[in-house]
Amino acid sequence: MAETMQGLSRTLTCGDARESHIGKTVTVCGWVQRQRDLGGLIFVDLRDRTGIVQLAFDDNTDRAVFEKASTLRSEYVIAAVGEVRARSAVNNEIPTGKVEVAVTELRILSLAETPPFEISDDCNAREELRLKYRYLDLRRPSLQRNLRLKHQVMKATRDYFDAHGFLELETPMLIRSTPEGARDFLVPSRLHNGEFYALPQSPQLYKQLLMVSGCDRYMQLARCFRDEDLRADRQPEFTQIDLEMSFVSMEDILELGEGYVSTLFKEVLGVDIPLPLPRMTYAEAMSRFGSDKPDTRFGMEITDVSDLVKDCGFGVFSSAVQNGGSVRGIVAKGAAGTLSRKEMDKLTEFARGIGAKGMAWVRWVEDKPASSFGKFFSAEEMDALLACLGAEKGDAVLMIADKNRVTLPVLGALRLEVARKLDIIPDTYNFLWITEFPFFEWDEETETWVAMHHPFTAPMDECIPLLDSDPGAVRAKAYDLVLNGVELSSGSIRITDPELQDKMFHALGLGDEEIKQKFGFLTSAFQYGAPPHGGLGIGLDRLVMLMAKADSIREVIPFPKVQNARELMTSCPSPVDQQQLDELGLCITHTEQKEEQ
Amino acid sequence: MAETMQGLSRTLTCGDARESHIGKTVTVCGWVQRQRDLGGLIFVDLRDRTGIVQLAFDDNTDRAVFEKASTLRSEYVIAAVGEVRARSAVNNEIPTGKVEVAVTELRILSLAETPPFEISDDCNAREELRLKYRYLDLRRPSLQRNLRLKHQVMKATRDYFDAHGFLELETPMLIRSTPEGARDFLVPSRLHNGEFYALPQSPQLYKQLLMVSGCDRYMQLARCFRDEDLRADRQPEFTQIDLEMSFVSMEDILELGEGYVSTLFKEVLGVDIPLPLPRMTYAEAMSRFGSDKPDTRFGMEITDVSDLVKDCGFGVFSSAVQNGGSVRGIVAKGAAGTLSRKEMDKLTEFARGIGAKGMAWVRWVEDKPASSFGKFFSAEEMDALLACLGAEKGDAVLMIADKNRVTLPVLGALRLEVARKLDIIPDTYNFLWITEFPFFEWDEETETWVAMHHPFTAPMDECIPLLDSDPGAVRAKAYDLVLNGVELSSGSIRITDPELQDKMFHALGLGDEEIKQKFGFLTSAFQYGAPPHGGLGIGLDRLVMLMAKADSIREVIPFPKVQNARELMTSCPSPVDQQQLDELGLCITHTEQKEEQ
Repeated sequence: MAETMQGLSRTLTCGDARESHIGKTVTVCGWVQRQRDLGGLIFVDLRDRTGIVQLAFDDNTDRAVFEKASTLRSEYVIAAVGEVRARSAVNNEIPTGKVEVAVTELRILSLAETPPFEISDDCNAREELRLKYRYLDLRRPSLQRNLRLKHQVMKATRDYFDAHGFLELETPMLIRSTPEGARDFLVPSRLHNGEFYALPQSPQLYKQLLMVSGCDRYMQLARCFRDEDLRADRQPEFTQIDLEMSFVSMEDILELGEGYVSTLFKEVLGVDIPLPLPRMTYAEAMSRFGSDKPDTRFGMEITDVSDLVKDCGFGVFSSAVQNGGSVRGIVAKGAAGTLSRKEMDKLTEFARGIGAKGMAWVRWVEDKPASSFGKFFSAEEMDALLACLGAEKGDAVLMIADKNRVTLPVLGALRLEVARKLDIIPDTYNFLWITEFPFFEWDEETETWVAMHHPFTAPMDECIPLLDSDPGAVRAKAYDLVLNGVELSSGSIRITDPELQDKMFHALGLGDEEIKQKFGFLTSAFQYGAPPHGGLGIGLDRLVMLMAKADSIREVIPFPKVQNARELMTSCPSPVDQQQLDELGLCITHTEQKEEQ
Repeated sequence: MAETMQGLSRTLTCGDARESHIGKTVTVCGWVQRQRDLGGLIFVDLRDRTGIVQLAFDDNTDRAVFEKASTLRSEYVIAAVGEVRARSAVNNEIPTGKVEVAVTELRILSLAETPPFEISDDCNAREELRLKYRYLDLRRPSLQRNLRLKHQVMKATRDYFDAHGFLELETPMLIRSTPEGARDFLVPSRLHNGEFYALPQSPQLYKQLLMVSGCDRYMQLARCFRDEDLRADRQPEFTQIDLEMSFVSMEDILELGEGYVSTLFKEVLGVDIPLPLPRMTYAEAMSRFGSDKPDTRFGMEITDVSDLVKDCGFGVFSSAVQNGGSVRGIVAKGAAGTLSRKEMDKLTEFARGIGAKGMAWVRWVEDKPASSFGKFFSAEEMDALLACLGAEKGDAVLMIADKNRVTLPVLGALRLEVARKLDIIPDTYNFLWITEFPFFEWDEETETWVAMHHPFTAPMDECIPLLDSDPGAVRAKAYDLVLNGVELSSGSIRITDPELQDKMFHALGLGDEEIKQKFGFLTSAFQYGAPPHGGLGIGLDRLVMLMAKADSIREVIPFPKVQNARELMTSCPSPVDQQQLDELGLCITHTEQKEEQ
């Protein structure tokens, strides 16, 4: 049976031991990182969340204590009392490296079996095993650091918005299902068999109702749920920094949002983010970077060469332009050597994988540029093309010819892929706002217009007349905050005019009955005096992942789920008792596993 | 079509207008509380969350603006620009009463229909109507005040625990169902048909695993879910201030907890809570107050008169004692007049309603005490009884004779009922800790021992030997924080010894297979080095309700559910599409409504 702390009280955390403690008697607690038994001398590295301190047992140590120290093994939990003294062999690698604790009392609070992997950041156990034993995985310093960072971000976030007059208000988790966008997780009701709650995809409707309630400025770190087929680095549940403000224009919200990120990065990371943040319209971002979330940490912008090649002898180019598409390219400076012919083949495959019919390229290694389409071009034509693209000797060029909705995103993706291959992305934080998003997106599958943001987003005033005549040209009062090519935040000014809201619902193909059933409480609320309002939501997990320079959001969530939405430590989801189903008035019709489909 | 704020920017919130603003041009926004048209003079009370300011329109007002002001109706949303000036008729009832805004520009941002009830704290609309139009109900000043108070409590809570080294760490909402205590809400899985997640009743297991992970000090304002048959003032979802600490004893946790409430009440309410808080064992609380959550704001403590009456001529008394029960009473000082015979009959009915067979009483109005059992008592016996109880002329006595598990709680409830009738409860905040709870409770229905706290609670060291021989006598390292008779918080030191944990599970009737299936991940975690730890959870909604002096937790939750777990504004739960059920592999077997059963 393990010993207890009875009568002991921790007086120092491991990572905080310093020379100023020398001569003091302290009590430290933690896990044995390792024990080294050198005959008459035993050293123990003791670890807690603050760091590691060395415990020393030697000739002067009480024999019973020494004997006990000799039984210590990795991950035992112990408490040790002793005097802090200078270390004979200083370790400059760790902040506590100049001191050690000469132990006079030792208690073993918990024994430990050998862990299935080493508790260290060098550990290369596979992720499944680490997640199964997440409570051991979390002991690693990098994960401890990430959790602490997330706490600091949450704290700084709440402090900032509190200082700006926002109230943190709780919205319900058991809400009405309104199938829009992603799928809802459903919660069957026991008191009302046959009826269901849904878990919120976001607090969108409630935060708008809080504005109608006169709450003025709302914020919440809100848990959100989406039952999606999980792509890499999505979680079925995630946290959103959610906010909404009344009596404001888009300008006010952007100002507040950028004040927030600048304060946050300064306070938590000590990094200066110059304000105001750059802004770019959706149209500009697409044409320069082929993306509505451009990574602006490097150049390699897209150039349109359609005019130059529209009558050229290369049919792929000329017909793309003549069919209303475009021919565009990017230039990888000085990369003609690195992007070998073989690399170009790989990049062509990559482009095909994301929807292009092919990719044209130029490698200007020697005096004469080599290219995939040279035989269709005269030397003068090639010179003119390269001049137009701004390519010089030593550069490589990648080109796509297709409809714009292929050309641009494919070049956007190639730009990122090439930058990664060339390792030219600097380690900085580049924020920017993307504005003037299209309101509608044409869904080829259902042949209907769908809302690019969501149906509560206000169209730009000057676009309202286009709603009937040219929906595709309607831009929205919507804005995204992008950091290093990642969409961090999405927001908009909302519709508050009940007639306009109805009109937008109709344009999205909703009938009157459907509107009333799904959103009746919202349009009804707008009848009783709705203030102009808008807001945004920031993905907390992604934000912290970028700040921590982590590879995945799973590294910043204490107990994440894997791609098929299972949590490996507790094995959930899991079957439940028949009695539980009976109480809910439910039966199971399928038990197939859909993850492999 | 309503006007917009284009080109305008709010410069002052309504409730903040003061004499220092006189002469300044301001822009204010809000809802029209009321409009008074006095012919050539129009006054508008404009309301936002900060308060009310008067807008004035008179002979000097531009005619178009004056005309527009004449169209204003209650709850219209407007923006007004004008100069702040001194008011001729000062209103000392409100902080802005010395000034008004002479409006030069007026915009109507939203029209409003006549609300179904007046937006005022005097409104006496029934709660169902208020909840259906919750977005209007929330405009009332008292609810705005409650939401602001809750925000302040949440902020002060996080600040306190952050300052004490706690990290706010997120635990999952989609977890494994472990049917213990209350019923779980279940969430069917679409990717794993036939399997379910549960929503957490509390983050108990995860916070213990965070301690095993070396996180040391964890806190979270955690949403919790319990699918119970709703008693008054319970919600299916509620928020818990949840925390856990490593390497501590009970003493450390109590000290931290009381430091928290004292800081909170000082910061948010300006109220001093003297420390240390009083403590009382469970046994003492039951025998003195008949409750494990005694309201100590008033006396009227319970006196045991069993010895005195065990051989008396009144069979109800003597047989209760002879059968191992007791006879006990409370004295309502000076209440012989108020507690008339009719009132005593009502109190007897009340006592019967909560399990007593009857109630004995004495009313000492005249020289000779009148009582319900006088004919069985001699004058001397009565004198002795009243002396033992400490009753004097003018007092009323209520007595119960039964088994202790009836006598004590019934007298505890009568004590509260009488105090309310007599209106003798002072308006103070009385905190106390209740300690040394029994570990086990005997469940008469299932004839098994169940855990009074939960199965992870550590028994007191000296009670471990009693586990097999006398489970009923085992006390736990558990503690409740009680405020004014309400259980605010519940906590304990946890078991960390895997063998002891197994032993407790067995004592609670769980078999090895069941333990492994439900809690295997926990007992397995304890094999790898678990620090001593403990914690507590504080009901945020109840805490804020008491601080706000509100009547119900529904008054401090923005969008609460009613007793049958429905939310009236959005009408949920609700039926869902067949397609949603198909994707989940479920079908509905019952659609009956259980609320009326």
